[in-house]
Amino acid sequence: MNEFMRAAIDEALVGAGEGGIPIGSVLVVDDLIVGRGHNQRIQKGSPVLHGEMDALENAGRLTADQYRRATIYTTLSPCHMCSGAILLYAIPHVIVGENRTFMGAEDLLTGHGVRVEVLDLQECIDLMETFIKTHPSLWNEDIGEL
Amino acid sequence: MNEFMRAAIDEALVGAGEGGIPIGSVLVVDDLIVGRGHNQRIQKGSPVLHGEMDALENAGRLTADQYRRATIYTTLSPCHMCSGAILLYAIPHVIVGENRTFMGAEDLLTGHGVRVEVLDLQECIDLMETFIKTHPSLWNEDIGEL
Repeated sequence: MNEFMRAAIDEALVGAGEGGIPIGSVLVVDDLIVGRGHNQRIQKGSPVLHGEMDALENAGRLTADQYRRATIYTTLSPCHMCSGAILLYAIPHVIVGENRTFMGAEDLLTGHGVRVEVLDLQECIDLMETFIKTHPSLWNEDIGEL
Repeated sequence: MNEFMRAAIDEALVGAGEGGIPIGSVLVVDDLIVGRGHNQRIQKGSPVLHGEMDALENAGRLTADQYRRATIYTTLSPCHMCSGAILLYAIPHVIVGENRTFMGAEDLLTGHGVRVEVLDLQECIDLMETFIKTHPSLWNEDIGEL
């Protein structure tokens, strides 16, 4: 696996170590990581800082041109909110650790011309399967499920 | 205009008073405002806290059931990111101040069964027209335009 997906998984592991939901992400521009993040629902009580959103937030204000040269790595298929953020900033390329435990809005992304690659990584699947099994109600809260 | 749209506009005015982008929002559950917010790009250097996202964030962690009884009021048509957040949490009703100065992802919302009402309020149009005229590059940054 390349260093950027490794960094996204490391973010997920940081989140797990904090008692949080183990989803991580990094934003890469011109082969440099400009933002790292992980789901902050537990840690900050945040309903908006999914892993991808936290990476975008930690990257701070970028130019439209920087986003259009960016790739976002995420350990889990991006939900509608995170996919919407990717469309807002016209990030052209999304690399996903896995989409077996949760299928996000990949169709919305590809329908707008975003390139979505799913790596189907066992390490990402294991992280989520363990989390969902031990914290089902927390996981449902994170994806807005009853 | 009802008290909730008034509160959203008041949030936009707070943002304008802080030197920020004048877009505000409130989240209403069971006829009570549970979160108020306004665009935080300037104030917090945030690329993710649009007005609607800030209202969701300030509401904190809600149950899926609460979101499904919610209405979100926003002074401006919600972009893809904010619309995606509305879909993530299955918020069924969106009331929009105006969509003349920016048309967001209303089709995405209505395509998923969300009820979108646009009030076409001159006060909201005036706020954005003045802002866009005086800060065009900042506005383009906020909507990911080159």
